[in-house]
Amino acid sequence: MDFVQSHYPESFAHCFGCGRLNAHGHHVQTRWVDGEGLATFEPEPFHIALPGFVYGGLVASLIDCHSIGTAAAAAAAAWGVELEKEGAPRFVTATLQVEYLKPTPLGPPLELRAWPLEVGERKVTVESELSADGVVTARGRVLAVRMPASMGG
Amino acid sequence: MDFVQSHYPESFAHCFGCGRLNAHGHHVQTRWVDGEGLATFEPEPFHIALPGFVYGGLVASLIDCHSIGTAAAAAAAAWGVELEKEGAPRFVTATLQVEYLKPTPLGPPLELRAWPLEVGERKVTVESELSADGVVTARGRVLAVRMPASMGG
Repeated sequence: MDFVQSHYPESFAHCFGCGRLNAHGHHVQTRWVDGEGLATFEPEPFHIALPGFVYGGLVASLIDCHSIGTAAAAAAAAWGVELEKEGAPRFVTATLQVEYLKPTPLGPPLELRAWPLEVGERKVTVESELSADGVVTARGRVLAVRMPASMGG
Repeated sequence: MDFVQSHYPESFAHCFGCGRLNAHGHHVQTRWVDGEGLATFEPEPFHIALPGFVYGGLVASLIDCHSIGTAAAAAAAAWGVELEKEGAPRFVTATLQVEYLKPTPLGPPLELRAWPLEVGERKVTVESELSADGVVTARGRVLAVRMPASMGG
């Protein structure tokens, strides 16, 4: 299984959240499986809001990068782009919404699931869930837009 | 000038985003000035989305913790709680919304401004702006709720 982020061009591979070339970052890795984006993440012991609970800013960061990866895979699928040959389309986040349903326990791997609601020519809307031990603790919604020329797109 | 986060009880001071006792964290520090929360943050060189631009997950994290600090200060002011004597009320994030207006350049210190829209008995709604070089690059909205007993509140 390879990852959507493996197919980002090198200029797009330095992201703190998901860039394979960022030595300090989270390295979120999105698998595209049957029309959904899937990812697993293991927080560090210091990624806490309170002792025993995962930091909400990390939850937001994971939802953000995983949703952008899912948007890229969904757009590629819709447009007939082959990631292996042509690379992944580059999207950036226009809006990020996170609903914290309950505290996320620190310990179990965090599982992320994301799915495209709508794939347009320039915009993809992605919804997502983050769960721990099989319990959904946060929901996300991201509006992803094609990277503007001002950022090198 | 002291900071809202200086008055969080020790159990609340380990947050990766703003805890004074988290050795690995961001140490967001909110000043309460004339009814607004103010903070300044200097990203590390590796906090990037793309070379030259600040990572959106960091922007979301800063808005989150600064808004919670602002909610605590606003609630204390509304309820007549003296932070120095009684400590800051503890809030957690129920919802986080971030609108990315334009890319945030890496380099200048990031300035955060947040203000309470509504202070209830259990909930505070906070709006915010993040700017770099005087240009607002992101807007935030956070619904903060008193910390539930399940988290030690």
